[in-house]
Amino acid sequence: MRCKNAFYAQSGGVTAVINASAAGVIETARQHPTRIGTVYAGRNGILGALDEDLIDTRHESAADIAALRHTPGGAFGSCRYKLQDLQQHRAEYQRLIEVFKAHDIGYFFYNGGGDSADTCLKVAQLSAALGYPIQAIHIPKTVDNDLPITDCCPGFGSVAKYVATSIREAGYDVASMAKTSTKVFILEVMGRHAGWITAACGLASEAEGEPPHLLLFPEIPFEPKPFLDQVDACVQRHGYCVVAVSEGIRQADGRFIAESGLTDAFGHAQLGGVAPVLANLVKSALGYKYHWAVADYLQRAARHLASAVDVEQAWALGARAVELALAGHGGVMPTIVRLSDVPYQWTLGMAALEDVANVEKFMPKEFISAEGFHITDACRRYLAPLIQGEAWPPFVNGLPHYVRLQNRAVPRQLPPFSH
Amino acid sequence: MRCKNAFYAQSGGVTAVINASAAGVIETARQHPTRIGTVYAGRNGILGALDEDLIDTRHESAADIAALRHTPGGAFGSCRYKLQDLQQHRAEYQRLIEVFKAHDIGYFFYNGGGDSADTCLKVAQLSAALGYPIQAIHIPKTVDNDLPITDCCPGFGSVAKYVATSIREAGYDVASMAKTSTKVFILEVMGRHAGWITAACGLASEAEGEPPHLLLFPEIPFEPKPFLDQVDACVQRHGYCVVAVSEGIRQADGRFIAESGLTDAFGHAQLGGVAPVLANLVKSALGYKYHWAVADYLQRAARHLASAVDVEQAWALGARAVELALAGHGGVMPTIVRLSDVPYQWTLGMAALEDVANVEKFMPKEFISAEGFHITDACRRYLAPLIQGEAWPPFVNGLPHYVRLQNRAVPRQLPPFSH
Repeated sequence: MRCKNAFYAQSGGVTAVINASAAGVIETARQHPTRIGTVYAGRNGILGALDEDLIDTRHESAADIAALRHTPGGAFGSCRYKLQDLQQHRAEYQRLIEVFKAHDIGYFFYNGGGDSADTCLKVAQLSAALGYPIQAIHIPKTVDNDLPITDCCPGFGSVAKYVATSIREAGYDVASMAKTSTKVFILEVMGRHAGWITAACGLASEAEGEPPHLLLFPEIPFEPKPFLDQVDACVQRHGYCVVAVSEGIRQADGRFIAESGLTDAFGHAQLGGVAPVLANLVKSALGYKYHWAVADYLQRAARHLASAVDVEQAWALGARAVELALAGHGGVMPTIVRLSDVPYQWTLGMAALEDVANVEKFMPKEFISAEGFHITDACRRYLAPLIQGEAWPPFVNGLPHYVRLQNRAVPRQLPPFSH
Repeated sequence: MRCKNAFYAQSGGVTAVINASAAGVIETARQHPTRIGTVYAGRNGILGALDEDLIDTRHESAADIAALRHTPGGAFGSCRYKLQDLQQHRAEYQRLIEVFKAHDIGYFFYNGGGDSADTCLKVAQLSAALGYPIQAIHIPKTVDNDLPITDCCPGFGSVAKYVATSIREAGYDVASMAKTSTKVFILEVMGRHAGWITAACGLASEAEGEPPHLLLFPEIPFEPKPFLDQVDACVQRHGYCVVAVSEGIRQADGRFIAESGLTDAFGHAQLGGVAPVLANLVKSALGYKYHWAVADYLQRAARHLASAVDVEQAWALGARAVELALAGHGGVMPTIVRLSDVPYQWTLGMAALEDVANVEKFMPKEFISAEGFHITDACRRYLAPLIQGEAWPPFVNGLPHYVRLQNRAVPRQLPPFSH
């Protein structure tokens, strides 16, 4: 089999460990120089392919590629750009194939969530139709943990460890202050549709009464009264109440709580921030002093507190993607297969992209407690292994030391493409 | 000199390392059993003294006291309760003396910020006037770093390390996303009057163009136009802009930006959250997509990322407070004295409480860059040593393992006191 080049791109929201997958791809490809020539990375994700803005990863030293394993964000740039419908926007897909052809690219590694799995599938299908063979492999990545088939998604374990640690620490703080000051603390975490990150907050509570006391999942319609009743009962019983809330909770009519009509001092509609809305609700109805936090990017970029399991799996999935390509596969995604909870054992599997694309995995009902405000033991058994182990980055001058790659461009060979 | 008991209380907002000071007090006191009988801790700070709700720390094992060194929050409970004017509310001070007398307490260790230094001073003065000698020693603690005389305040170094790490990590995230998505990221940090924590964010930027690009200090009146001009120029130049803002920034008329008239969907005035206000301002004026985070308690409770220097100094100041008491001092506060920046060398000193109480230390002008949006090299030289070293807590099941003390109450000997 002749030597071909590979294309690798990062897609959608980045994570603390997506670069570990990149390292897995590049390090494994470098071990097969007779089969894989150069790994080209897309600058800013798939846009790099459409714009023929390719990064030549050969210029990056082995040490810098290894450092990707402990560097958050997307080292080559990511993008939020969903390739459109194949029938209506066939030109975009054809452009991809042209760029791949111009640079003798035979392997397409796309590192992202559900949308990018769909793109990856379409590339696989179109390359066959256009007679230029591309082996398209999707590498899972999403803090939302909402991809099907794979037991978990790289990026999630580290966010889970971060939010559980953060809410535990904040819980110690609030407990100290509750007598005379803050009685209710609300932490807003990511998860627009699926409540996995909110659920992970629940791991911080290992015994009755330990915070967080309430979890608000996007899977459960939000109603003020039961929420306020729970908060009040918790304060009465424990002296304080710590709440984790998904950014994506909605009212029964489907409206996001965070989108419900805020205006600020400059007269602008205010978007985002369900935590302050809930905090004000608590203050108005119950009179308790509150504090709230919105972790936002801090949670998904917190490489300093990554889960060692997550880092290892992210790297392994990148490496396995290359191995699958070398074994002749295309239109597939390597997956995490859980073998046992305790001790935690996992191996790698493979899923067809037809079964992955555009499918969202929500929290199953048996993971949410009966009253809807916490996680069950079954959920704990699922989540607990994913946050195991610390994988501290190197620290220099008191701060984590992350790598910045050179990201040197490959000379263009095609005319520009407008998209 | 006969053996007397000691009283220790935590005051005001807690930190990641205030318990390290508690450990310093208790461990050092235990080394002098012929001079110090029991260390009683106030449950919920000074309220524990007023209510005669004392905790007998003898029941806590050496291992648990040692674990305070890596446990955030206030292990005995803190409070926001400022003792009032001595002339008008003399009864409260007299009550303190009565409680101290009833429990044979001769040493008063008060662990807090500027307000508690003032209380500590008044206790020292009154005990002399009432003829019951109490050696009142203040142990500095405040994430705001705004106490005078001491080179720095325990709690600050760890917040500084946390916010600098967090904004560096978020910066890697935003840089990845900026091409097609988020171009402006705003992190709101604590600091109502003094900009020390905001300044610490600046440490994450070690070279031209590295985030954070803009710092908004409470010492500088906020004006929308220069801010927006800076943001726009930064996005034009670097492709994105990362901003750290103090919760306490104000307009020239003195109004807090965070207090300027938000109302939410439920019709309530919304307090807090300067980051979303600025983010909306950016969106409206410049059209850039934004994200924002409010770290709130997460920053001051983040013991998982504490500065080793901070932990060591917090412990040392607690220990030194006991040594000062045993040496006959009262009405004083042990301080950190800096001997050199590089290599960082420090020793312990002592300040009279008259010189500490009710004095706030703001950022000096020479620490803020000329245009007002970043820190100077002089500021870096001051800040850099304070975030050095990692002091990871033990991790169990993937999460930091913190101690909860027994906090057994001492039987009351006095009638209740209403305050």
